[in-house]
Amino acid sequence: MADTKVYRATTTAPVNIAVVKYWGKRDPKLNLPTNSSLSVTLAQSDLRTLTTATCSAAPSFAAQGADTLLLNGEPSDVSGARTQACFRALRERRAAVEAADPSLPKLSTLPLRVVTENNFPTAAGLASSAAGFAALVRAIADLYELPDTPAQLSLIARQGSGSACRSVFGGYVAWRMGELEDGSDSLAEQVAPASAWPEMRALVLVVSAAKKGVSSSSGMQQTVATSGLFKQRIVQVVPENMATMEAAIHAQDFAKFAEVTMRDSNSFHATCADTYPPIFYMNDVSRAAVRAVEAINAAAGRTVAAYTFDAGPNAVVYYLEKDAGVVLGTFSSILGAVDGWTGGAAPSAASAKTLDAAVADALKTGVSRVISTGVGEGPIKSEEHLVGEDGEPVKR
Amino acid sequence: MADTKVYRATTTAPVNIAVVKYWGKRDPKLNLPTNSSLSVTLAQSDLRTLTTATCSAAPSFAAQGADTLLLNGEPSDVSGARTQACFRALRERRAAVEAADPSLPKLSTLPLRVVTENNFPTAAGLASSAAGFAALVRAIADLYELPDTPAQLSLIARQGSGSACRSVFGGYVAWRMGELEDGSDSLAEQVAPASAWPEMRALVLVVSAAKKGVSSSSGMQQTVATSGLFKQRIVQVVPENMATMEAAIHAQDFAKFAEVTMRDSNSFHATCADTYPPIFYMNDVSRAAVRAVEAINAAAGRTVAAYTFDAGPNAVVYYLEKDAGVVLGTFSSILGAVDGWTGGAAPSAASAKTLDAAVADALKTGVSRVISTGVGEGPIKSEEHLVGEDGEPVKR
Repeated sequence: MADTKVYRATTTAPVNIAVVKYWGKRDPKLNLPTNSSLSVTLAQSDLRTLTTATCSAAPSFAAQGADTLLLNGEPSDVSGARTQACFRALRERRAAVEAADPSLPKLSTLPLRVVTENNFPTAAGLASSAAGFAALVRAIADLYELPDTPAQLSLIARQGSGSACRSVFGGYVAWRMGELEDGSDSLAEQVAPASAWPEMRALVLVVSAAKKGVSSSSGMQQTVATSGLFKQRIVQVVPENMATMEAAIHAQDFAKFAEVTMRDSNSFHATCADTYPPIFYMNDVSRAAVRAVEAINAAAGRTVAAYTFDAGPNAVVYYLEKDAGVVLGTFSSILGAVDGWTGGAAPSAASAKTLDAAVADALKTGVSRVISTGVGEGPIKSEEHLVGEDGEPVKR
Repeated sequence: MADTKVYRATTTAPVNIAVVKYWGKRDPKLNLPTNSSLSVTLAQSDLRTLTTATCSAAPSFAAQGADTLLLNGEPSDVSGARTQACFRALRERRAAVEAADPSLPKLSTLPLRVVTENNFPTAAGLASSAAGFAALVRAIADLYELPDTPAQLSLIARQGSGSACRSVFGGYVAWRMGELEDGSDSLAEQVAPASAWPEMRALVLVVSAAKKGVSSSSGMQQTVATSGLFKQRIVQVVPENMATMEAAIHAQDFAKFAEVTMRDSNSFHATCADTYPPIFYMNDVSRAAVRAVEAINAAAGRTVAAYTFDAGPNAVVYYLEKDAGVVLGTFSSILGAVDGWTGGAAPSAASAKTLDAAVADALKTGVSRVISTGVGEGPIKSEEHLVGEDGEPVKR
């Protein structure tokens, strides 16, 4: 009789927040960037995607016809070019493995059933696509028992979502833009593992945006097409930031890490403002977070915190564990009431004085929750399957 | 007996709002800019400085010892390098005239008493230094009966305040950055008189800033010193904007005028955001004004309005008289209650629909007054002396 076993593989994947930003595609179809970028992978205990990939010759799978994806309990469309590109590339690799060893089951011919969940609210406005595609690719690669290295898998994840290629590694990760037209050299590599500089912490200030801004995918192409300043960023600013940032990470030089992080975020948002029509991701609350970080550093007499902003108003503040008191203390003294405090940052009335009234007021009004986390590991294999041995999604 | 006559000369001078921005000095002492700029001179019926320059050998003048300046009724310090540079340059020119004609009174040896008034609230946050120094220089030049042309006087006004050199002309004015180290070729010239394109109107949306931003004089030097994108602006972006803008003005092509105006404002604020630490002049209300102009143009199906922002949150919206209905109508429908409406823009409920609720709400909350004006003339000689024949300031 036919093999009706349900093949399963489950993995987690982390979120990453860039300190040298990805903004601009030289090839939109292949997600080839106009510049290299570098990010810090965040701990999965706070932010992670859990994905189970399954396939089977069982009737219920055959019945579904095509590949399916269940995201946070909701059926999700997989017909998009990006998802299809990932499925196709992974199946091709599996088919090659099967061709080399005819004794292996022909999983590449079976429909995929993928179930995935995030442990953080989508409402947080954190780019979940990076963790999502990294988990999708890693889970299917495990299901197919592919021999590919994380760097090779990053080439596939990149086609799902550019920044996803950085989420296949933990710690400090660079996405090398590459030069080849087929994108085969545009991949991620680990600059340093989390263990090399484990003291790195990140406080996410979730800012409720009045309105969703332009999507990063279309926004970055508008910048490439219309910003008169953008060329200078990709030709000179980013290459210098990449070199300085990698040296800072290897030297565990936080002051330098912080300066490049803040300068690169400023440069990225400057090119957005120079786009025509202009793109504004930061709002007055975001700007208050910038002033708060500047005030915290001024009060400390040294650089203890760095701000960075992605394609939205949320602020991510990097700092070192040893400075948690002064950094978290100042924020918790005005944001102690909002959800998300962990790691026992005790509100400190004293450090509230660090911020001027307008800044404190803007943050108090505009920050809806905080997420206190730090540098973390890459995708981790899990036995917490979201699909049972019967092939049905597990009720949770 | 000694001549105790009080010599007087009075002039007005206009405000100008740049459409290609001045930002960056290559020589801070001489106010030599890193790039050329271009502005529209605004009508003095709405915004002007009135200045009377006097000098005399009368005892009360001798008693004051040094030169004095009364600004809006308050004694103002004239010991600053910029004001002194203007006084010195003008005295030197007068001395040369006296040397050539010994029969002339030796006004260059007498203390100056200058009295000046603005017809608009300083609270409006409109750069009054341009009108102020242009009036100061023009009034003293008239007092001294100097033969200098406006372009020659712009060299002196420039040393008082860079943008002041553009306020010595009416209409559409370019400040050529020049190349010489002594700045003798960094002067203003008229691109076109107001009469060549008299339909140009300007609506100033006065936004009450929560806090005064960094001064433009120090801010621009921080940008020059720290922005990685700034060089691209002065080497390529501005030269192209200057050429396109001058052609648009000569062709009276509003769509092109508007696009360059908006792009250049975006580029300028982008370099501010790229400054380290970042400089933010625009706030959420300013950004709402940007969205409002975009919505008005979209609703009109063509470009009928252009936004521009100087070193502050105020928006200046340029439009043509023929489009006053659609432009003013939309703004007055939500801002009809604030001070400053002139030119009979009737609130139009219909056009309120042009703006989405968030934009309309931000403007309604953040705009404290409007100033409706248009392109205007340069400095005008006046008999409305602010100093009497007795040498005493006129009580008003």
